[in-house]
Amino acid sequence: MQRKLLAEGIGTAFLLIGVVASGIMGEMLSGGNVAIALLANAIATGCILYVIITTLGPISGAHFNPAVTLAFYMRKEITPKAAMSYVAVQLTAGILGVWAAHVMFDLDVIQFSTRARTGLSQWFSECLATFGLLFVIFGGIRHRPEAVPTLVALYITGAYWFTSSTSFANPAVTIARTFSDTFAGIAPANAPMFILMQVVAVGIAAIVLPRLFDD
Amino acid sequence: MQRKLLAEGIGTAFLLIGVVASGIMGEMLSGGNVAIALLANAIATGCILYVIITTLGPISGAHFNPAVTLAFYMRKEITPKAAMSYVAVQLTAGILGVWAAHVMFDLDVIQFSTRARTGLSQWFSECLATFGLLFVIFGGIRHRPEAVPTLVALYITGAYWFTSSTSFANPAVTIARTFSDTFAGIAPANAPMFILMQVVAVGIAAIVLPRLFDD
Amino acid sequence: MQRKLLAEGIGTAFLLIGVVASGIMGEMLSGGNVAIALLANAIATGCILYVIITTLGPISGAHFNPAVTLAFYMRKEITPKAAMSYVAVQLTAGILGVWAAHVMFDLDVIQFSTRARTGLSQWFSECLATFGLLFVIFGGIRHRPEAVPTLVALYITGAYWFTSSTSFANPAVTIARTFSDTFAGIAPANAPMFILMQVVAVGIAAIVLPRLFDD
Amino acid sequence: MQRKLLAEGIGTAFLLIGVVASGIMGEMLSGGNVAIALLANAIATGCILYVIITTLGPISGAHFNPAVTLAFYMRKEITPKAAMSYVAVQLTAGILGVWAAHVMFDLDVIQFSTRARTGLSQWFSECLATFGLLFVIFGGIRHRPEAVPTLVALYITGAYWFTSSTSFANPAVTIARTFSDTFAGIAPANAPMFILMQVVAVGIAAIVLPRLFDD
Repeated sequence: MQRKLLAEGIGTAFLLIGVVASGIMGEMLSGGNVAIALLANAIATGCILYVIITTLGPISGAHFNPAVTLAFYMRKEITPKAAMSYVAVQLTAGILGVWAAHVMFDLDVIQFSTRARTGLSQWFSECLATFGLLFVIFGGIRHRPEAVPTLVALYITGAYWFTSSTSFANPAVTIARTFSDTFAGIAPANAPMFILMQVVAVGIAAIVLPRLFDD
Repeated sequence: MQRKLLAEGIGTAFLLIGVVASGIMGEMLSGGNVAIALLANAIATGCILYVIITTLGPISGAHFNPAVTLAFYMRKEITPKAAMSYVAVQLTAGILGVWAAHVMFDLDVIQFSTRARTGLSQWFSECLATFGLLFVIFGGIRHRPEAVPTLVALYITGAYWFTSSTSFANPAVTIARTFSDTFAGIAPANAPMFILMQVVAVGIAAIVLPRLFDD
Repeated sequence: MQRKLLAEGIGTAFLLIGVVASGIMGEMLSGGNVAIALLANAIATGCILYVIITTLGPISGAHFNPAVTLAFYMRKEITPKAAMSYVAVQLTAGILGVWAAHVMFDLDVIQFSTRARTGLSQWFSECLATFGLLFVIFGGIRHRPEAVPTLVALYITGAYWFTSSTSFANPAVTIARTFSDTFAGIAPANAPMFILMQVVAVGIAAIVLPRLFDD
Repeated sequence: MQRKLLAEGIGTAFLLIGVVASGIMGEMLSGGNVAIALLANAIATGCILYVIITTLGPISGAHFNPAVTLAFYMRKEITPKAAMSYVAVQLTAGILGVWAAHVMFDLDVIQFSTRARTGLSQWFSECLATFGLLFVIFGGIRHRPEAVPTLVALYITGAYWFTSSTSFANPAVTIARTFSDTFAGIAPANAPMFILMQVVAVGIAAIVLPRLFDD
């Protein structure tokens, strides 16, 4: 279990470094062209997702995401106790990843985002994005397990662009990003609705996906 | 069959979300630089294509495209009745996907495109694009079935750039995109010629491809 | 043999469509930012290379390039007669591909490039680019044949950026691009030195690569 | 051993060509938009990394990096003598690669960078970047050896964006880049701290990674 938690911790920290630090770099270099910043952000996130899922998947399952852990828990593929440890590590490591990003770009380590991300369209985006993520994970596990790293990486790279929220799709990522007043941040007040939508998506996926992927 | 139709529906809906919503986001963020918007649009489309073909291919064959269903029907690899159900689901789900994209970006759900896409050069583009898509699918099935998701994804990402129509290559996509007055839209009056060219390409492919890929 | 020549013809035509048409589109949409045009051009070329090598490799070997055919001939892996037929088809199909690109973008079909591409630095670039292409092909065949489509696609996508000539690395491509006065064109007077450098690289590769990849 | 050293030499030279020449091209074409230059630079580097690791990995192990050679030496998987030969070839070939890049872009062959890359945030970046590179290599070797070329290529493409130093992560690359007063250069005075941080990361990785990836 210790090795699994170490894997979840390193993976989630690298995920947040990938998301937040590439957002900072993108905004810094793109001279106000947000599309180029987001393209770099989306590509860097896809790259790090492929890497951490490939190397750590065989150890911990490579959740890095409380919504994914919850989905596995509902399928009784992880014990309640292990699930709680996973989520605790994900939340902690996510914030540490954000702080590491700040150190790398010489920013104040402790920050809180002032970036509003709210409204029905973004809430619907988070719900759809998280449903799609679970769809991709469970479809991949069912039909082509060795492709799961590529599936998740490409799905999220695309979903940055086809959702108005840029697809957080992950409560640990959502909370960690409240700690960064940079390109990838989200105001703390807006986080709970994002997380609620992500959890709702876990419920919808639990109903729909077995019809597609279970015998 | 129900599971197959569910797969075609979810896949086609996600395809149109990928195409239309990433076009909206691209146009919104790129500050008038159409090339950057199209690059994001092409990459996001390739990402979602890889994802839906990998996860749903083993269930329904992952057509998501009446032209592909027609090609399989002409090879007698799908019954007329199943083919008609497939097409009905593709058309319906494509429109639902467009509407979901509108909801995610807080736009009027019901819209009709005013974007002209017409002329000999674009019609020839659609014919060539669709022929190329079938070439890629049947060549992949013949020589490397496990690569079909990558083949289709990369082919379409490239074809966005090497055809003047940006490669619809899909009647369900063409019809769905008439319902969106955004970056990816096509005026309803221009859709029939696009679809005709796509069907012509199915005929050309039925003559040429067996010389290449059948024993 | 007829099937092999059909494969070389379709593949080379699609390769030139990929290169020339995406260059036209890139220049058209990028508002003078050449880097974005070249990025789209490089990505689209990589996409089409992956596609044609994967689907046609098992039929003809997927040369699409007289320099590659010459290299196989020097290794006695293709007969002189077959090699000459390959090259004839590559040259013809390349030009047809360029003309198809012009039709798709409503340009005069018959054109000749006025774009100067000359000088020692570009000649050295072509020599190095072609050596690298053969290095990648023969290294891939030796150690990981199933990866050859990805190797060539990624190598050329990268080489667009790390050579000053943007890596033609292919006499059929060089000749075909003299027929297009667009982004990807090369003035006819500059083609012979490009081709000479490509042939020189075949010679260098014939000396160096066996030390690396032969028993 | 001669073949191994030839492989390390060709690979490291191509790596530096990929990094430095694509940086020159990116800066030349991007009209001052550094983000687009860096995006091309990152993509080209990822492309060449995939290519050289796939084709040369089976010969020399595809280190191309004294930090990687040191890590293997600490695991007693390479003899001291072989390790020293590897490093000597990497250092020499890296500089030759930079000079080849200069020739391709018609620049003075002999140059020294005047670009400052210094400060705590960049030093921490190099340490983290190098740790991540070793994490990816040893995790890949442990769980999915055939994916190592993709892992390293995507990791570095992403790490260009999620570290403030753009992830040199390689002493041979660091030294070679002091010889280029272009986009990818680093002032000679700033190189020692980069290299020190890379070596520190090898030490940290030697402590942490066995807990994750060894039995």
